[in-house]
Amino acid sequence: MKALLFHCKKWAVKFDSLANRPAGIKPESVNGKEEQKCEDCIVAFVTVEKGDDKEAASRGLADEIKKMCKEVGRKDAVVIPFAHLSNNIAESKFSLEILEEVVTLLKKSKLNVIRAHFGSNKSLLMDVPGHVGNARFREF
Amino acid sequence: MKALLFHCKKWAVKFDSLANRPAGIKPESVNGKEEQKCEDCIVAFVTVEKGDDKEAASRGLADEIKKMCKEVGRKDAVVIPFAHLSNNIAESKFSLEILEEVVTLLKKSKLNVIRAHFGSNKSLLMDVPGHVGNARFREF
Repeated sequence: MKALLFHCKKWAVKFDSLANRPAGIKPESVNGKEEQKCEDCIVAFVTVEKGDDKEAASRGLADEIKKMCKEVGRKDAVVIPFAHLSNNIAESKFSLEILEEVVTLLKKSKLNVIRAHFGSNKSLLMDVPGHVGNARFREF
Repeated sequence: MKALLFHCKKWAVKFDSLANRPAGIKPESVNGKEEQKCEDCIVAFVTVEKGDDKEAASRGLADEIKKMCKEVGRKDAVVIPFAHLSNNIAESKFSLEILEEVVTLLKKSKLNVIRAHFGSNKSLLMDVPGHVGNARFREF
């Protein structure tokens, strides 16, 4: 798993169309995920890879998101499935399982979590404040 | 080299502070790069890695940026040094050489190019329209 984390003053996505790449992708239902946004939150772009350890990867990412939330004094997080951090992307079903496990772990820690739609072309707005540690790359 | 490319309706960065990570980083002068922005452009976040082939990587990335510019009918590009797509980051001097070579190749192809500051914490604004191919990951 590869993840790119940002502290965002503003973040928003809007559904445009279902993705048909990478080959074999199985988009989930768009219902309820047409438009999503948050302010002053930690946003994690996540690429689940073939061979990821579900338990270790989901726990590692959840811990990193919690740590970053604590550092900026916020309880709001976004988990956005993102196919663009690796060329070794896992199958859709497995990716969704891991992403949902991350969400479960964050909710157990009393964070408010938005999970963005899996399998679509979306518009993206990001407004990232300039400070040390505002962007981070992690591998799990 | 790893690169993340976006078509942006709006893109802007503002210098905040010089980076002291990763260890050994040598930031360049900020002069003239305090604040940079563009509209309707192709933005490439670029992580140069140890062992990259300067000629092949710079040409590969320049060709990809030119292709994406052509697809969206624009002649404006941004090359932004970005330490967050890999854990195998090249030395600063080598990274800058490759980034500058990409800029040179793009200018030869009559593109307008902004090259963002190397070695700083910056604010970042991105407004990406929702369409197929608005975000791409490439390895060179």
